[in-house]
Amino acid sequence: MKTTNRVMVSRWRSGESTIEEDQVIVEYPLTIHLNGEELVTLLCTPTSLKELIAGFLLSESFIDDIDEIIELNVEEEAGLATVNTEIKRPLREKLIGRRTITSGCGKGTSFYNAVDQTKAIKIQKSMEIHPSIVLQLMREFNQNSLLFRETGGVHGCALCNSSEILFQEEDIGRHNAMDKLIGRARLEGKELSDKLVLTAGRVSSELLIKAAKQGIPVIASRSAPTELAVRLAQETGITLIGFARGDKLNIYNNFPSTKV
Amino acid sequence: MKTTNRVMVSRWRSGESTIEEDQVIVEYPLTIHLNGEELVTLLCTPTSLKELIAGFLLSESFIDDIDEIIELNVEEEAGLATVNTEIKRPLREKLIGRRTITSGCGKGTSFYNAVDQTKAIKIQKSMEIHPSIVLQLMREFNQNSLLFRETGGVHGCALCNSSEILFQEEDIGRHNAMDKLIGRARLEGKELSDKLVLTAGRVSSELLIKAAKQGIPVIASRSAPTELAVRLAQETGITLIGFARGDKLNIYNNFPSTKV
Repeated sequence: MKTTNRVMVSRWRSGESTIEEDQVIVEYPLTIHLNGEELVTLLCTPTSLKELIAGFLLSESFIDDIDEIIELNVEEEAGLATVNTEIKRPLREKLIGRRTITSGCGKGTSFYNAVDQTKAIKIQKSMEIHPSIVLQLMREFNQNSLLFRETGGVHGCALCNSSEILFQEEDIGRHNAMDKLIGRARLEGKELSDKLVLTAGRVSSELLIKAAKQGIPVIASRSAPTELAVRLAQETGITLIGFARGDKLNIYNNFPSTKV
Repeated sequence: MKTTNRVMVSRWRSGESTIEEDQVIVEYPLTIHLNGEELVTLLCTPTSLKELIAGFLLSESFIDDIDEIIELNVEEEAGLATVNTEIKRPLREKLIGRRTITSGCGKGTSFYNAVDQTKAIKIQKSMEIHPSIVLQLMREFNQNSLLFRETGGVHGCALCNSSEILFQEEDIGRHNAMDKLIGRARLEGKELSDKLVLTAGRVSSELLIKAAKQGIPVIASRSAPTELAVRLAQETGITLIGFARGDKLNIYNNFPSTKV
């Protein structure tokens, strides 16, 4: 499906006005039905939809493992997806799941819940990667973010090993981009416990929790982390890097013991 | 409450590493109880909390009018707010409300629902404001965005009349910033049908719907709108301006009939 569409705009430049065509990013509503019941409508960029759905179900704990998905169909034109899973959790759990989703930017839990969620999670082994490699990967990531460069309207995420970008995903939502990355990795059977995730957007607690749930050891962002994300990084042992730009970056935890 | 906190970071710059203090933005979980029941936990910047709650309840249609709020208490340290309203809508409606909230970036409804929601809304009278004034207000807005300049981690919104900024709000969430603006305007008894809203972030359908519900006639953003936001602007008659930077801006609808 198209990720951008043309619209007519009136461009005003230093007092001169012209009517021109412009590219705007598509915002696509995708309604997910899980085991016969309507679950949620995601507003997203219409790429990697199966990956998005798989990642969303994992991140929100509607499934614990990718193999629980028996069927995943997307009717692109209709904006409808149907998913059937092996374990059919009762509606009550789903509703509780829904209640923790905020209007801010994604799934919101109280701090204590956030800590609870990540208490069981400890990154066992960090990843050895030199800051100069992180910055090199970030430069490549920026260059490859085509939709961002075209429209200025999306966030990207990239999955990397210690030397190269394996793939990247983009979406109008920061959290959707991360869910696409997680879903794609799991659908491709990729190990995540030895990978680095690059993100263009800010790192909030929610993004940190998504990564922690998958055992991702390092997150590096072009922009700022929140304090809660820093605290959760300390709790879980995820190495959190921010403001990775040019030849600079900040490491928010895992130092000086960190291998980074 | 503090909006930023100090953390120790390891700064890496061109091969040199130093341990320094850094300011990071606080991500504050605020749990709202409405008429005795837990409604939602918002992850937000701890400023203008009453305004945020009032705006959230209005935007999400838990109340139709600010005067429906009988009581609104915030226990800042505990991160708890209790709200009592005149009209107590049944739980079922609330849960339906919850289900439409997505993990993307805020409240998500399907396109048809989004159109349905705004069908009844038509901006009756646009606002006359010259592009050069919009750009001047945007410059002032950027200069005043202190938390953004300090941390790089927040989004801002400003309410303006045709010549000046009346107030501005910041939050880690784009949608929270808009809800704070709406809540504050309504708590102060301000008319919104003759005002301009400036926003630093992208304009998605959800932001457009929030503005439409309050009859705000013009939104101007420093960054990109989505195509769905453009279509909803056309439906509702809101004048949508994007990429307002320096001496340039794009007007996405209401031209050439627009007074802008």
